[in-house]
Amino acid sequence: MIGAVLGTGAWGTTFAQVLADAGCTVRLWGRDAGVAARITTDHVNDKYLPGIVLPDAITATTDVREALDGVDLVVVAIPSQSARATLEPLRDLVPDHAVVVSLMKGVELSTDRRMSEVVAHALGIDDSRVAVVSGPNLAGEIALRQPTATVVSSIDPQTAALVAQACSSGYFRPYTNSDVVGVELCGAVKNVIALAVGMAQGRGFGFNTTATVITRGLAEIARLGLALGADAETFQGMAGMGDLMATCASPNSRNHTLGKHVGQGMTLDDAIVATGGTAEGVKSCRSVLELARSVGVEMPITAAVVAVLHEGLPVVEMARGLLARPQKAEGL
Amino acid sequence: MIGAVLGTGAWGTTFAQVLADAGCTVRLWGRDAGVAARITTDHVNDKYLPGIVLPDAITATTDVREALDGVDLVVVAIPSQSARATLEPLRDLVPDHAVVVSLMKGVELSTDRRMSEVVAHALGIDDSRVAVVSGPNLAGEIALRQPTATVVSSIDPQTAALVAQACSSGYFRPYTNSDVVGVELCGAVKNVIALAVGMAQGRGFGFNTTATVITRGLAEIARLGLALGADAETFQGMAGMGDLMATCASPNSRNHTLGKHVGQGMTLDDAIVATGGTAEGVKSCRSVLELARSVGVEMPITAAVVAVLHEGLPVVEMARGLLARPQKAEGL
Repeated sequence: MIGAVLGTGAWGTTFAQVLADAGCTVRLWGRDAGVAARITTDHVNDKYLPGIVLPDAITATTDVREALDGVDLVVVAIPSQSARATLEPLRDLVPDHAVVVSLMKGVELSTDRRMSEVVAHALGIDDSRVAVVSGPNLAGEIALRQPTATVVSSIDPQTAALVAQACSSGYFRPYTNSDVVGVELCGAVKNVIALAVGMAQGRGFGFNTTATVITRGLAEIARLGLALGADAETFQGMAGMGDLMATCASPNSRNHTLGKHVGQGMTLDDAIVATGGTAEGVKSCRSVLELARSVGVEMPITAAVVAVLHEGLPVVEMARGLLARPQKAEGL
Repeated sequence: MIGAVLGTGAWGTTFAQVLADAGCTVRLWGRDAGVAARITTDHVNDKYLPGIVLPDAITATTDVREALDGVDLVVVAIPSQSARATLEPLRDLVPDHAVVVSLMKGVELSTDRRMSEVVAHALGIDDSRVAVVSGPNLAGEIALRQPTATVVSSIDPQTAALVAQACSSGYFRPYTNSDVVGVELCGAVKNVIALAVGMAQGRGFGFNTTATVITRGLAEIARLGLALGADAETFQGMAGMGDLMATCASPNSRNHTLGKHVGQGMTLDDAIVATGGTAEGVKSCRSVLELARSVGVEMPITAAVVAVLHEGLPVVEMARGLLARPQKAEGL
């Protein structure tokens, strides 16, 4: 199988390795000619995967027409907010039989669309030809071929099976899933929960508090998902629980790091500077909360994150507010 | 409310603090007169909770009759395998109206009974008067009053509500639950998954692999639980996902530590020595696997742990075997 990967960042390059190790011929596309030449000639991507030697089956080009020529699979791994503008000009270059995979997380801010929807709209293809991949997939560890699992989700089981087949190897185990809404919701809302976990750890709390916030955080993501028609099992799986745990454990997650700074007492502005820029969840927490309210779903952790970041609630009050909620039965 | 806590170990003493902070008068019972005197007079338990000053509402005694006199609540926090022998002589001392709480994990090895069953049998009381408490509850962190949640489970909703009320405070949030089978199964099988996580980390694998093993580990615990009549939601809650995450994150878990040694290449015997003794999961993994087979449930991670610890499978083969399973849809 021949695959094109659009984007030479850490996850795009790593997924190119995953495909190559699973037996595909892979063409990486990016705008930087120097990066492309280093990948093709020396099999390295110094900027994003220092120290990793890429398989010979990967070449890179700045010519998107060349990258997409005759491919069976197109993997999109570019920044979410520029996806539409990047993909629209490629409409006529994606072969009719090709399946398109989104590795992107979050939603398009201008339209509130999920990334798989943006991909389908921008390329003018049917949703059945689009799949999303999501799970506990920190790129640096996968590049080292450490074992992990993931979810390949598509409304079309054949599309999901084809993509799963294309990326399955001795260290990367895909499970298929048909709940695209649930998988993409997990990918977007996990950042808000990672902020909350960071805040708790910034205050010096340990494993119990972390596990409590993640468990109840996942429960509130699942509540929202069920109200939006997602499947409960998705949240317990790799794209839900798996990705959330890996994100909240990694010291490299921007949301987690920014939350920690806030937990240690920084203002949001100072925390953004200390993190080297803002984090996805800072912007998205308000839209998530609005969405939850519009469908009548309670999301107390998300509401607390919004209150701390945007409404001046002291972070010391956050735990108190969450724990003081009325006694209740466990459940979604 | 007046409560007695049987057992002056770390969890028993910490739970006494939880009850006292929630407004109860608490009598700790233990066999060591020196420990009891230090608790009553100096409000410290140096051996298990060094550095913690206990509330004044806690006294300790070696006289079990005195400890149980007129109490509303009896909390059992003694070693699982000696529970029956310790409790049987107390039959006539537990007041008729008192509710009994088990903090114990695992099963009674000689009978394969869950600990709440052992408590009810040994004291000759109805199951409806017994509750179990389980969650992401590392004692040392709770003693420092770090926020956490837990599950209080009983077949009788009134019993669960009474216990939840008795232990609810600004840092300890109980959720009630009626699935005692599920809660106790989680507490027993988590040790096997913690061994598997330790093995993976011992081999140098990071957050992705850890999240993958925990996510699929919880899925196989849930599969077994559903076959035994438990509720799916329990596994996603504090006693399932919450406790499993905290256990697998803590460097103090014996199962986790022993698994790490094995992952680093030690034999089981050497790992037991290096851990300072064996770990619960080493013994229980075989019974769990037998139980799963008897009800026709597949538990590949548990089977791999049994194979590595007891059947000579090299730990390097373990990941390979788990990842090479046939491609499938995600789910329980």
